[in-house]
Amino acid sequence: MKFINKLTRRLDFINSHLCVGLDSQYDLLPFFIRKNNSVSRAIFEFNKNIIEATSSISIVYKINIAFYEGFGLEGLQALEATTRYLHKNFREIPLFADCKRAEMGNSVLMLKKYIFDWLSFDCIMLTPWFGYDSIKDLIKDTTHGILIYVHDSNPSAAELQDLKLKNGTALYEDVALRIVNKWNKNGNIIVEAGATYPKQLKNVRRIVGDNMPIFTAGIVNQGAPVENLKGVFGWNNKRLIVNSSRGIIFAGKDKLNYFKDVKKAAENLRDQIMNVSLQ
Amino acid sequence: MKFINKLTRRLDFINSHLCVGLDSQYDLLPFFIRKNNSVSRAIFEFNKNIIEATSSISIVYKINIAFYEGFGLEGLQALEATTRYLHKNFREIPLFADCKRAEMGNSVLMLKKYIFDWLSFDCIMLTPWFGYDSIKDLIKDTTHGILIYVHDSNPSAAELQDLKLKNGTALYEDVALRIVNKWNKNGNIIVEAGATYPKQLKNVRRIVGDNMPIFTAGIVNQGAPVENLKGVFGWNNKRLIVNSSRGIIFAGKDKLNYFKDVKKAAENLRDQIMNVSLQ
Repeated sequence: MKFINKLTRRLDFINSHLCVGLDSQYDLLPFFIRKNNSVSRAIFEFNKNIIEATSSISIVYKINIAFYEGFGLEGLQALEATTRYLHKNFREIPLFADCKRAEMGNSVLMLKKYIFDWLSFDCIMLTPWFGYDSIKDLIKDTTHGILIYVHDSNPSAAELQDLKLKNGTALYEDVALRIVNKWNKNGNIIVEAGATYPKQLKNVRRIVGDNMPIFTAGIVNQGAPVENLKGVFGWNNKRLIVNSSRGIIFAGKDKLNYFKDVKKAAENLRDQIMNVSLQ
Repeated sequence: MKFINKLTRRLDFINSHLCVGLDSQYDLLPFFIRKNNSVSRAIFEFNKNIIEATSSISIVYKINIAFYEGFGLEGLQALEATTRYLHKNFREIPLFADCKRAEMGNSVLMLKKYIFDWLSFDCIMLTPWFGYDSIKDLIKDTTHGILIYVHDSNPSAAELQDLKLKNGTALYEDVALRIVNKWNKNGNIIVEAGATYPKQLKNVRRIVGDNMPIFTAGIVNQGAPVENLKGVFGWNNKRLIVNSSRGIIFAGKDKLNYFKDVKKAAENLRDQIMNVSLQ
């Protein structure tokens, strides 16, 4: 199946905009999971429980692979186990690799092998810094997607991304235009725009049109109010994916109710976002 | 020892500008290495031989980690074995992680653990796309360095990097200025500028000054003539690092002379570059 169909099918039929970020940093996992488990086993067990609690609420799972790479081979084994588990048991849920990468030529084919073949991700998240060379070999395979960081949610995202070009557009707008007019030849590119910059988020929606899914982050943990999402939900209010990672996966308090609390946190955020989409 | 001192000491005392790129893609390794070896063992054996043949000629080793990640856990085991081997036996040779990454906040600390702690690299190569947030937590530790891709050698590098800003500077110049005036507070940032864009390479040298080491690529394999390096060698002709990967590591022809041919290819390129530096 085409990546974009897998993603829009999920957006169309699940009543949620939430993406749970499985940024499961080992040393932050609850003690009852770490106890008596290897690093690799603990991370995988934790993820399985998070997935069980959120699979009906999470449109997409996003994984920042740095949280696994930071724990060496053990971390990477846990990453492999998690993505295989998801691929096998929840094939309908698209899986995004938050890796902030870009390669060109021979090395982009290696990145493809790493992220798509070995780790079973559906979509790779790329920086646009090196231009079309890092995109062109990836768009050919429409069963996989490319998500481009157009405008990020972090405080210094504006430093380069908001620079005004000679022709009056901002750099992030130029990238969005480039995606729409030149790069997205096969329809498998989507974009990120951070919710901490509501004006830019709206501009990105305006440029990419109503039908392209936008991935956004910065709600809750980076302090952006859910109201910042107003007006950017796209076609039928179903073309926005809203990420939350630590605010959900670490929402548990005690061993007995840890994953129930996680589920509650996910449902709560899903409902908050849904309310804004209906305003 | 400070990263910048380790690097400049090497540049000052070794009569070479060459950086050998250990981009040892498994399926391109000679058959006599792959035969009777696991993937991991074959890559490590190959690298050990390359290092033995080039350690007196290579100022720095650069590794594009995608060529290892592409072969999963086996590839990563070979990467770990290679960087540990270099760290133990050739500690005086700086080791650069060509990973084209950038993380912010909690995840940048994980990237640090991955690249510096687990993989023993001395320097991480970052895209500037997300601004100072992805730099600030890395510059604190001056025993490690940050290399920023200011202007790349690939054909579409110009697409964003050459965009003219409202104030008349090009985007890559703005990044170089930002590094010099704002980001390089602790003196452990260096820059990349591709040799396939000689005008931009000269501009970067002008902006960063004579003393900052510049890393360049695109000679030989991407077709840039060695003459493009004229005038950018910096202080005492000793502040330029010139990468070559496949042109060197795959220069061997037959089993008997493979690594002798590699050594010859490295010496040959070193001499060509040296000649240009003395013109």
